[in-house]
Amino acid sequence: LIRPIHFSEVILDDGFWKTYAHKVSEVTVPVCMEYTEAKTGRIRNFERAAGLLNDGKGHEGIYYDDSDVYKALEAIAYSLKIYPSPQVEKRADEWIDKIAAAQEPDGYINTFYTLTGLENRWSDMEKHEDYCAGHLIEAGIAYYYATGKNKLMNVGIRMADHMDSIFGPGKRNWVTGHQEVELALVKLYEATGNKNYLNLANWFISQRGHGYGVGRIWDNPAWGPRYCQDDQPIEAISHITGHAVRAMYYYTGVADVASYTKNTTYLNAMQRVWEDVVHKNVYLTGAIGSSRHNEGFTKSFDLPNAEAYGETCASVGMVFWNQRMNQLTGNAMYIDVLERSLFNGALAGISLTGDRFFYPNPLTSYEGDTRKEWFGTACCPSNIARLLASVGNYLYAHDEHDIWLNIYAGSKTTVSLKNNRVKLTQQTNYPWEGSVSLLLEPEHTGEFALHLRIPGWARNDAISGGLYRFANTETPDTEIRINGKPTQYKMVNGYAIVHNTWKKGDRVDIRIPMEIKRVLASDSVSQDRGKVALQRGPLVYCLEEADNASGIFNVILKDDVPLLETWEPHLLGGIYTLSGEVEAVIPTPDRASATTSVQPFKAIPYFAWANRGKQPMQVWIPRRVTSILLNKE
Amino acid sequence: LIRPIHFSEVILDDGFWKTYAHKVSEVTVPVCMEYTEAKTGRIRNFERAAGLLNDGKGHEGIYYDDSDVYKALEAIAYSLKIYPSPQVEKRADEWIDKIAAAQEPDGYINTFYTLTGLENRWSDMEKHEDYCAGHLIEAGIAYYYATGKNKLMNVGIRMADHMDSIFGPGKRNWVTGHQEVELALVKLYEATGNKNYLNLANWFISQRGHGYGVGRIWDNPAWGPRYCQDDQPIEAISHITGHAVRAMYYYTGVADVASYTKNTTYLNAMQRVWEDVVHKNVYLTGAIGSSRHNEGFTKSFDLPNAEAYGETCASVGMVFWNQRMNQLTGNAMYIDVLERSLFNGALAGISLTGDRFFYPNPLTSYEGDTRKEWFGTACCPSNIARLLASVGNYLYAHDEHDIWLNIYAGSKTTVSLKNNRVKLTQQTNYPWEGSVSLLLEPEHTGEFALHLRIPGWARNDAISGGLYRFANTETPDTEIRINGKPTQYKMVNGYAIVHNTWKKGDRVDIRIPMEIKRVLASDSVSQDRGKVALQRGPLVYCLEEADNASGIFNVILKDDVPLLETWEPHLLGGIYTLSGEVEAVIPTPDRASATTSVQPFKAIPYFAWANRGKQPMQVWIPRRVTSILLNKE
Repeated sequence: LIRPIHFSEVILDDGFWKTYAHKVSEVTVPVCMEYTEAKTGRIRNFERAAGLLNDGKGHEGIYYDDSDVYKALEAIAYSLKIYPSPQVEKRADEWIDKIAAAQEPDGYINTFYTLTGLENRWSDMEKHEDYCAGHLIEAGIAYYYATGKNKLMNVGIRMADHMDSIFGPGKRNWVTGHQEVELALVKLYEATGNKNYLNLANWFISQRGHGYGVGRIWDNPAWGPRYCQDDQPIEAISHITGHAVRAMYYYTGVADVASYTKNTTYLNAMQRVWEDVVHKNVYLTGAIGSSRHNEGFTKSFDLPNAEAYGETCASVGMVFWNQRMNQLTGNAMYIDVLERSLFNGALAGISLTGDRFFYPNPLTSYEGDTRKEWFGTACCPSNIARLLASVGNYLYAHDEHDIWLNIYAGSKTTVSLKNNRVKLTQQTNYPWEGSVSLLLEPEHTGEFALHLRIPGWARNDAISGGLYRFANTETPDTEIRINGKPTQYKMVNGYAIVHNTWKKGDRVDIRIPMEIKRVLASDSVSQDRGKVALQRGPLVYCLEEADNASGIFNVILKDDVPLLETWEPHLLGGIYTLSGEVEAVIPTPDRASATTSVQPFKAIPYFAWANRGKQPMQVWIPRRVTSILLNKE
Repeated sequence: LIRPIHFSEVILDDGFWKTYAHKVSEVTVPVCMEYTEAKTGRIRNFERAAGLLNDGKGHEGIYYDDSDVYKALEAIAYSLKIYPSPQVEKRADEWIDKIAAAQEPDGYINTFYTLTGLENRWSDMEKHEDYCAGHLIEAGIAYYYATGKNKLMNVGIRMADHMDSIFGPGKRNWVTGHQEVELALVKLYEATGNKNYLNLANWFISQRGHGYGVGRIWDNPAWGPRYCQDDQPIEAISHITGHAVRAMYYYTGVADVASYTKNTTYLNAMQRVWEDVVHKNVYLTGAIGSSRHNEGFTKSFDLPNAEAYGETCASVGMVFWNQRMNQLTGNAMYIDVLERSLFNGALAGISLTGDRFFYPNPLTSYEGDTRKEWFGTACCPSNIARLLASVGNYLYAHDEHDIWLNIYAGSKTTVSLKNNRVKLTQQTNYPWEGSVSLLLEPEHTGEFALHLRIPGWARNDAISGGLYRFANTETPDTEIRINGKPTQYKMVNGYAIVHNTWKKGDRVDIRIPMEIKRVLASDSVSQDRGKVALQRGPLVYCLEEADNASGIFNVILKDDVPLLETWEPHLLGGIYTLSGEVEAVIPTPDRASATTSVQPFKAIPYFAWANRGKQPMQVWIPRRVTSILLNKE
């Protein structure tokens, strides 16, 4: 079984992700803490539930608000590991004291029910009690790994034990209204070794699709059981339906359970639904969810760009799920998708300043948009924060014998193999450059293989299944050198396997060709027909009006126009821009007609859009004129 | 008090409306009967409730489906008056027998509750029991006036008495979830003279806005009390909110009650909210409702064209409400709006063949659209049918002394004044031509005034309040001749008052100038900025792709381009088209750029769109290029 190297064992020490980790620690975490504690009543709810605050005000906010406290704590935990801060840790410890004090004697914890009537707990499947419990458990484990303190984890364990006393075979039926507790219980099993939690996670999964779900979701004619993937048992699933974040958390939990129970029915179901997502229902940015009405899926190949939902949290969920699928199968195609979601759909959810957030992430914005400081339903800020602070989780993996490199990033780690411990030092300017230099320092000279992921985009494979493809198909091979000497390698499951007897000081240099790619969508995607997108490395590009004075919706990028890449250190924190010439259809001075002229264009990485005020933006650029709409509303 | 001449006293005998009345009788009514009786279970529900059918199947369809039976019967009644048909009448009588047999001993009637559990009746304000009762009452009265048979009216009276026994001062509170019973009870008061019904209507109105509403509407966070106008008492209302059809039926009922109770608070409220609708929230077509999410209103001046809801039933409701407002005030500006909704927003709801229907009526359709045969919620087909079959209601009005002419149409009627009875014969080709010839045959020579409506569009007043205005403001005066001799007339409240001592055989000729108008919207309507629409007489025009080979979304209609009107007898049943030249921005043959060229264009009346298959359509045409969007999704 392949297991990831835990973020706590990975030191991000230069480049792209370190900048983000720093931003999260310095800016995002304090913003989340301020909103959680002062600007909203989320911590006060715990104080009231604990009897520490008696202002008679009852529960503030929405019934699932506890979860934001837990997600913030999870982000804090990761951030403390990277940037220790006694002040932040002290404040987190105070929160944890209040949380622990709010726990009921029987282990139950949920401030909404404690403050509105504990007699009603576990009566409404939509009320997110299990969802909040899941985030509590995740936070407790993360905080334990980051600080060694187990108080919060113990609160989570007591809540898990409480749930285990109520739910399970032969007890009552329960369909979690918003999945999450399943994957959290598996994490708790991993952290404690207590198999009850694994069994309970599996039981929650097995409850779905049998008609046990009742309440607001199920009664809503526009939603129904499909909305929360309760329309069929997991074994029968082949199409993705409903709310995208619920689906992602669910599938992550199912893959987790499958990895421990060796349930091949689960694995097969996951592979079927993954193909449905990746072959038919994912945006080029790795975002998912076409409709804001159900925050999720409509029908296959319906991928509207301006109306795209593409919730930040769903892209975060894609990262979780695809990591699990990679571990289960050893196939890099899952990391290709993970990478696409991480660098584009998820990363666009946070501003370059680290303190503004997008909830939906469209691929076209006619008016432009601005990220918000916070949301009533505040899942996205803390979710992107916890992802970026724990991005170390996604770089390396290993089994007893071998080492996997998945996402390249300047970093250090030590990998424990069965018969060796290997210190790795990785230097790279990824995702800007495709060169990676790896220093190996095994404890002793020994034989093992490196599985070096050669990204799909470097192998003319835009995405598994062909929903997107590259127009320019000539791609140089990735070069791998050992101690300066070019080496042959075998490709297996998307990885270059470099088997060797390694000694301290060995160097591996990987040169992944990072060319500008023209991307075309499958003809089945009507919204992208006759259009082209640009990608370089894992980064999808977009046009923003700030860089394109003659407009962005009125231009044609012809197939034979040369494209240039330019490093612009002072633009948007330092980015490669792509540029060339387009045919721009432009109003005449009297505005009574239009003419076409050649104009320069410049594209920026999609993740960096909307950092210069409200700017119209477009990912998919027409290749030829198929229709002309004047004066769009 | 001004009262309309009842449809049953008006003979439509040539021209525009007779064609529609004929179509409704020959096509629409049979279609509605077929769907009501055979293709859906609406009549079977009554058979089951009456114990005439024992198939054990329970209630079929939606809980408000009874209302469609009643509305169909109302349309049948009007149609029988115009085109007697023994077969149709026999079938309607059979329906009525079944309905009467389904009535409970205490007068209650609603097949949903009879078949699902009578003990639950009147427990859920959203279940449309009162709404269905309202349509029953309206149908019963219409059928009585059309056929002289009172069986259905008596069912309605017993249901009204049942409601009167449950609801009213000192009894329980009740907010009708979908208004309708209020206006029906006033009709029943008019038909029976029993003031209880007027009082009960007033009581239902007075229940709103006090927090009595409970149930699904009120619990839905996206709806709440505003959705059904239950957020404030009618006395306090100044803005239109929520579901458009509910609002229209409500306001019609309020105006009705105000007319009998002389409640000036109600009248003032109606005038405030009318101004809110007409000054800020109505489409050029007289349609209302900007959003399909609440089937109603968003914020003032938000009038998206492609996303417009503009439900057919809401335009029908605009006709009802504006007629009442005209009666209350004697002001023709309400008829101007009624006319706009009738000839455009409502009429577009039905195909030229009479058997296909639109539910929403957008002003832009990028893909084109096709009217449907029927709907799950089938309010629109029978609603447009009953309106078109009873359009005679809107032509004439009178008080003791004078006669009002509101909508011009080839027709005959006899008006009873205090001291005279006046036979009127009207000849006109309205709305295609503005000439109207009126033959007066009073029983005896006598003095009275004719109030001849001079439409706002003939007086350079596109709509009261200035939401829309005409770009070309030079308008010849309307000419009125008595027995061939031009006469001076005074304008009061939008009517030309022609006072005379009339004798048998007198003729009045009215010549309303019917020029092509360029319409501009207020700058507050962002969606129409820089655009122009065309109107001729009461008819709003649109471009349909069928007539415009070089496209309709890529053209500029310059302000100084001459416009031509042409009678095309073989196009769409015979219409005036408007034509001229536009600047069309067109792709070059290689589709790598675009050029502008002068192209002919042709516009057709909006009501006639979508009768030639799926055709892209647009009402508002750019006057100058403000933006260019290539390859719209």
